[in-house]
Amino acid sequence: MKRRVIIVGGVAGGASTAARLRRLDQEVEITIYERGEYISYANCGLPYHIGNIIKSRDALLLQTPQAMKTRFNIDVHILHEVIAIDRNEKTISVKNLKNQEVTLEKYDTLVLATGSSPVIPKIPGIQSKRILSLWTVHDTDNIRQFIQENNVTNAVVIGGGFIGVEMAENLRHREIDVTLVEMLNQVMTPFDYEMAQLIHESMEHEGVHLQLGDGVDSFEDYNDSVLIHLKSGKQLSTQLVILSIGIRPNNELAKNAGLEINPRGGIVVDDMLRTSDPNIYAVGDVIEVEDFIDKSRTMIPLAGPANKQGRIAANNIAGDEDHYLGTQGSSIIQIFDLTAANTGANEKTLIKRGLVKGQDYESLIIVQNSHAGYYPGAVPMTLKLLFSKDGNKIFGAQIIGKDGVDKRIDTIGTAIRLGGTIWDLKSLEFAYAPPYSSAKDPVNMAGFVAENVLKGRVAFSDWDSVEKSDPKKTTVLDVREDAERQAYAIPGSINIPLGQLRTRISELDKEKEIIIFCAIGVRAYNAARILMQQGYSNVKIFPGGMRFYRATHY
Amino acid sequence: MKRRVIIVGGVAGGASTAARLRRLDQEVEITIYERGEYISYANCGLPYHIGNIIKSRDALLLQTPQAMKTRFNIDVHILHEVIAIDRNEKTISVKNLKNQEVTLEKYDTLVLATGSSPVIPKIPGIQSKRILSLWTVHDTDNIRQFIQENNVTNAVVIGGGFIGVEMAENLRHREIDVTLVEMLNQVMTPFDYEMAQLIHESMEHEGVHLQLGDGVDSFEDYNDSVLIHLKSGKQLSTQLVILSIGIRPNNELAKNAGLEINPRGGIVVDDMLRTSDPNIYAVGDVIEVEDFIDKSRTMIPLAGPANKQGRIAANNIAGDEDHYLGTQGSSIIQIFDLTAANTGANEKTLIKRGLVKGQDYESLIIVQNSHAGYYPGAVPMTLKLLFSKDGNKIFGAQIIGKDGVDKRIDTIGTAIRLGGTIWDLKSLEFAYAPPYSSAKDPVNMAGFVAENVLKGRVAFSDWDSVEKSDPKKTTVLDVREDAERQAYAIPGSINIPLGQLRTRISELDKEKEIIIFCAIGVRAYNAARILMQQGYSNVKIFPGGMRFYRATHY
Ligand SMILES: Cc1cc2nc3c(=O)[nH]c(=O)nc-3n(C[C@H](O)[C@H](O)[C@H](O)COP(=O)(O)OP(=O)(O)OC[C@H]3O[C@@H](n4cnc5c(N)ncnc54)[C@H](O)[C@@H]3O)c2cc1C
Ligand SMILES: Cc1cc2nc3c(=O)[nH]c(=O)nc-3n(C[C@H](O)[C@H](O)[C@H](O)COP(=O)(O)OP(=O)(O)OC[C@H]3O[C@@H](n4cnc5c(N)ncnc54)[C@H](O)[C@@H]3O)c2cc1C
Ligand SMILES: CC(C)(COP(=O)(O)OP(=O)(O)OC[C@H]1O[C@@H](n2cnc3c(N)ncnc32)[C@H](O)[C@@H]1OP(=O)(O)O)[C@@H](O)C(=O)NCCC(=O)NCCS
Ligand SMILES: CC(C)(COP(=O)(O)OP(=O)(O)OC[C@H]1O[C@@H](n2cnc3c(N)ncnc32)[C@H](O)[C@@H]1OP(=O)(O)O)[C@@H](O)C(=O)NCCC(=O)NCCS
Repeated sequence: MKRRVIIVGGVAGGASTAARLRRLDQEVEITIYERGEYISYANCGLPYHIGNIIKSRDALLLQTPQAMKTRFNIDVHILHEVIAIDRNEKTISVKNLKNQEVTLEKYDTLVLATGSSPVIPKIPGIQSKRILSLWTVHDTDNIRQFIQENNVTNAVVIGGGFIGVEMAENLRHREIDVTLVEMLNQVMTPFDYEMAQLIHESMEHEGVHLQLGDGVDSFEDYNDSVLIHLKSGKQLSTQLVILSIGIRPNNELAKNAGLEINPRGGIVVDDMLRTSDPNIYAVGDVIEVEDFIDKSRTMIPLAGPANKQGRIAANNIAGDEDHYLGTQGSSIIQIFDLTAANTGANEKTLIKRGLVKGQDYESLIIVQNSHAGYYPGAVPMTLKLLFSKDGNKIFGAQIIGKDGVDKRIDTIGTAIRLGGTIWDLKSLEFAYAPPYSSAKDPVNMAGFVAENVLKGRVAFSDWDSVEKSDPKKTTVLDVREDAERQAYAIPGSINIPLGQLRTRISELDKEKEIIIFCAIGVRAYNAARILMQQGYSNVKIFPGGMRFYRATHY
Repeated sequence: MKRRVIIVGGVAGGASTAARLRRLDQEVEITIYERGEYISYANCGLPYHIGNIIKSRDALLLQTPQAMKTRFNIDVHILHEVIAIDRNEKTISVKNLKNQEVTLEKYDTLVLATGSSPVIPKIPGIQSKRILSLWTVHDTDNIRQFIQENNVTNAVVIGGGFIGVEMAENLRHREIDVTLVEMLNQVMTPFDYEMAQLIHESMEHEGVHLQLGDGVDSFEDYNDSVLIHLKSGKQLSTQLVILSIGIRPNNELAKNAGLEINPRGGIVVDDMLRTSDPNIYAVGDVIEVEDFIDKSRTMIPLAGPANKQGRIAANNIAGDEDHYLGTQGSSIIQIFDLTAANTGANEKTLIKRGLVKGQDYESLIIVQNSHAGYYPGAVPMTLKLLFSKDGNKIFGAQIIGKDGVDKRIDTIGTAIRLGGTIWDLKSLEFAYAPPYSSAKDPVNMAGFVAENVLKGRVAFSDWDSVEKSDPKKTTVLDVREDAERQAYAIPGSINIPLGQLRTRISELDKEKEIIIFCAIGVRAYNAARILMQQGYSNVKIFPGGMRFYRATHY
């Protein structure tokens, strides 16, 4: 009899496992059970279909069960839910959702690619039919239909994670008035607060009302709308609520079958993606993975890892040993005309792990152009980098800007993956012509600046250093030209343009801390070098200059 | 007395050295001598100023001598040519080009950043005033003025390297009729021939007449034009000739001073960028560097390396030891709406080094979308990858497409720099959302395909396999759908859509070689997997499918 491989879940991880396995082995019997109506669809495209950016619904359906059969000889059963695993008998119970019939199916190898589901908290009023979540094609259809049928002109998004922020944007594309409620003081937790401020500024600018640091107490249907009672006491009234406060792994099958599960509900797998039962593999959102940065165990539900894990599981099932080496959590999001991307750990995480700045790690924030400033279209990006005190480990990076962000996060991500150091960033050789980069790419610059930080040649102030400082002890020095100060200048700051600093240096008090400002940080750095070599011992530059100051203090 | 550092040449390498050195050391005396009228200008932007893409000439001048003085306390002397070095006395002779006066200047450390100059061959008629080269701001002014004053409507570019191709494009932006003459059978030698065909197709499409495989015999002024007599016997008549057939290092100073020079004229330096005289450093186009890929000595005149070398030389001069670890030759060019980029070695180079395909190295060509196909704006890119037979070394990559090319060449370039392998490419974690990438990024795909090649799971035919094959021995199998064949199909090809292959497999002759086509290669690969496991032993897929076939056979 032919070997039977059964895959539970037919989207990112499941379909990828199946397709790769078929290419490796034309003989093995491959069956996919999917409880939903669709397999192999573009989850990540769903918000954009709601925003009418992706016009065609069909474009989201990458494979059909029919094509899976003719192209890959894979049997796909949609609307079939796997409800139990008998590991001794190596069988699963499958419920046909069309007629509720349950059948037993035998497997030799089982793959769990059951993904995750949105968390629906037990908040009073949550069952309102005006409260929707986005996870599947079905959800997408629902939301689109609801918007159209109810002529929705205002909505509230609960939760400022990826999907919440993408939904806020896409509802704006449909000219719906949007308020976003988030319990934390920032959206997009992969970013540190000061970086998230750039996102906040942009979202508000695009007409999204942010209600940060506030949570939902209860919902209440009221005529043609739902009232949201917030913890702050505030009330919002809206036609539509999009709930996206988090997800949890679909681990019931695994749990009931006694497979090892971690405290957060993730299925525990080894680096060949085998669960605690060697005949059962698991991939995708439902598994625990190794955090590539600190080697701890974590859960990172993203499409790239899910697809790669599917291929690795298939290789292992086919006998071609392959290993999954952890997830570093590289992610990216378009927020109107901004792109925000990150890789590795952020500063909050380092602090949570007990690392101390200046002792265990250092950080920098620089602003650099997307490409040569003299070539049309160059726009600034803000880059935050976290690295170890010896420079030999890059912990993570966050970049926000309007162009070229994806490239830089991916080159830094590649460097992290391959064990690159701060010293490597200095020497990375990027392809340069004026439309694409600068002779010193922003990533090289980050390396240079990191070197300067580690060798004590520059020190950055905190992003909120001005408001925290005591004017009696701190001089705010602005080295920009007069014309630049017309637009904005920090009250109380002293102005000595960089070109005059050498001759006017005596105007500055050596006993005071000096925080230097320029437009983006480069002149401030050059000024700092002058001061530091003239006996000024407490000199800091404001990271990212006036540009970053204003974005973080918008 | 203060230590005196003199820098010869004040543009990319020289100005970078000076600026960094000043930041490290406020005490040292820094003097730049520049024989031209400008320092610190954007060489790389010059062609775009001619094309009016960069409108402002001022934008190209990044620093002035005045600003260098006030900002950096660096003495800059323009229109001063250094004409001799006395290494024993540690002096240089400087000629003031305004009054021809020569003075002697003492140095403690000397930096040669003299760059390179266009080669002007001794061809009859070359002195015509209608024959211009582009290298400096002055050249740019000349060409712009010539075009305007002579109302130039047609021009011939001699040489298909970076500058020749950029000039062809920029002249087209001014609606000038352009012919490009190139001695080799392709433009842009960093690319292998079949990849260069994509560039040829695009250039012809944009109205550049290509005259490949032909050289200039002589020029002849004739009324208001110049006649170009080509080696082929052909004649061209044109108002303006742009000559860009190559460059040579400005090594006269070094040579006359007895510094070690390599056979190609490059100044020999160690990895701290010291010449054979420990008091003399050299950086930029004028030096020999280590080829990062095969560790041979070579010359790679690019702005990124020049800028980085300047910084490294400054570090060493200031006593903060730093090393230059070789150049891999990452470069990129915009050619109308195409981007063409490369890193590392191409196949021609590997062959020249005596490496044999299938024995020492393998190659692949794939076509993949710039980002998720279902998100608007996705466009295909063609990626060629060269790697060792054990997969542990990536020799190089070439990518051509309309979007996302720069990102992928830089991630592969980073992987090469950090010693990444084919197996690493598989696991690199890129930031994914639909506007930026696919869950499996093209670079991951290249890793997957490379693995398949190395493990014998797929074999690519040559790009010219169809015309080289004997129909009696070879089946051309097209697995696309009927509708796709309407647009174009290879004459004599057999059509079995992938979905029917399993049932119609017996129609194919097992004894013959089979070359499989689809649109971009993915279905062909899936078809190959079916055939190879059914006893078809000589199965190849056409790289990049019909898309690449048609571009290479335009
Ligand atoms: C709106 C949205 C936007 C996203 N955007 C991005 C993005 O931009 N970038 C990114 O990297 N990631 C994004 N993601 C996350 C990404 O889609 C997931 O990480 C990925 O799909 C996980 O793959 P998976 O195979 O583990 O789970 P899924 O793709 O969710 O597939 C799991 C499937 O298993 C089925 N299933 C579960 N239990 C059973 C059962 N018992 N029987 C049968 N079938 C079952 C489910 O119905 C589901 O179809 C997004 C997700 C969503 C929903
Ligand atoms: C039109 C053009 C486009 C380019 N595009 C790109 C691109 O897109 N990407 C890329 O990476 N590279 C590009 N380059 C190449 C890049 O500009 C060079 O590699 C880089 O400028 C080399 O730096 P350098 O300091 O060695 O030489 P340069 O920048 O050329 O500076 C050398 C200077 O030394 C001066 N000099 C020479 N001899 C003497 C002497 N005896 N006394 C005094 N002064 C002297 C010269 O006048 C010159 O100004 C381009 C070059 C040109 C000309
Ligand atoms: C559609 C789906 C079944 C695709 O599976 P797939 O066949 O493995 O993926 P692709 O069509 O991209 O093809 C990739 C294969 O083609 C090969 N390939 C890619 N380009 C190639 C080319 N030009 N020439 C030859 N081979 C090529 C790759 O090596 C890979 O094969 P391998 O895994 O055997 O090495 C699966 O990815 C899926 O369901 N995706 C949608 C769900 C999802 O991912 N959602 C989250 C993101 S929105
Ligand atoms: C203009 C020129 C003199 C610049 O020299 P420079 O001062 O070294 O370069 P930049 O202005 O880009 O500044 C880079 C410095 O600022 C630092 N820096 C960059 N961004 C920063 C930020 N936001 N905050 C703090 N420091 C920053 C870097 O670390 C670097 O300093 P370091 O080398 O001491 O580490 C020189 O590059 C030049 O002449 N260029 C034109 C010629 C040329 O390159 N042509 C070829 C390409 S077209």
